[in-house]
Amino acid sequence: MRVMGVDPGLTRCGVGAVVGRTGVPLELIAVGVVRTGADDPLPDRLVALEAGLEHWLDTVRPEAVAVERVFSQHNTQTVIGTAQASGVAILCAARRGLPVSLYTPSEAKAAICGSGTADKAQVGSMVTRLLRLKEMPKPADAADALALAICHVWRGGNQQRLASALAKATRGRAR
Amino acid sequence: MRVMGVDPGLTRCGVGAVVGRTGVPLELIAVGVVRTGADDPLPDRLVALEAGLEHWLDTVRPEAVAVERVFSQHNTQTVIGTAQASGVAILCAARRGLPVSLYTPSEAKAAICGSGTADKAQVGSMVTRLLRLKEMPKPADAADALALAICHVWRGGNQQRLASALAKATRGRAR
Repeated sequence: MRVMGVDPGLTRCGVGAVVGRTGVPLELIAVGVVRTGADDPLPDRLVALEAGLEHWLDTVRPEAVAVERVFSQHNTQTVIGTAQASGVAILCAARRGLPVSLYTPSEAKAAICGSGTADKAQVGSMVTRLLRLKEMPKPADAADALALAICHVWRGGNQQRLASALAKATRGRAR
Repeated sequence: MRVMGVDPGLTRCGVGAVVGRTGVPLELIAVGVVRTGADDPLPDRLVALEAGLEHWLDTVRPEAVAVERVFSQHNTQTVIGTAQASGVAILCAARRGLPVSLYTPSEAKAAICGSGTADKAQVGSMVTRLLRLKEMPKPADAADALALAICHVWRGGNQQRLASALAKATRGRAR
């Protein structure tokens, strides 16, 4: 499964793509950020973000996209901009017909580090190890995007295994 | 000036367009709402909202778009969805090269009703009177979108008059 993760933001929108499936080592496809100018007007920033994400989707050609879920209890100064950026990211993926999954930061951390309260350094360290990278992806938004993509590979894989196990069990009972 | 106002929302996104300039009676072009299914997945809703707004922009052909500014102190349950909808609205207008202005609810109310704390009924009543409509536009989101468009016509007009008066005064002093 080729998955692109997006850690939405206006100043730095983290993007990271991996290929993998449960039980097989993950491979990095690409990682980076889409940046927009902090002093630019909001409409220009959203247009630039859309163009940047479209370029990533064209390049990475993912089968699924995982986007971090935005909560309003986050920093209220920036939460509206982050929500707008997430809306653009979800839109770009969904109108291509790609399945979009939303994960909370805790879900991504728990999937990668075993704890929903792991800090940025732990997430970066685990992403680096899981993808066998020489150094930690920077900035943290880029590492977070990879964590979302990995979370989706594993949870997607597990969900599929669970679904097929359940289907098998149901067929067994039906016989 | 042909202005389209947008009161962003996922369930009901108000859209209303007027033509006018300062000192001349306003004319209604069109008013309505773009609706998306409350039970539909968020990615589908954002795609449907984009398609709906694109259709409005194609039909109305505005010269400028006025969008309500979203604040995080609003109802926190829905503020993220409202912010995502506003992001899509701003994006749709901006990537056509249209100027996008953001107004707070208080700014729109003050422009239309003379008070930033006017209630929904007052806004609806003034919109109805200013556009010489037979009945109040419904739902309230549609009336709010018209209020934003009218606010932009008047403030845009005033800003232009102020700018030209200032330019004239500066030229006068320079002589």
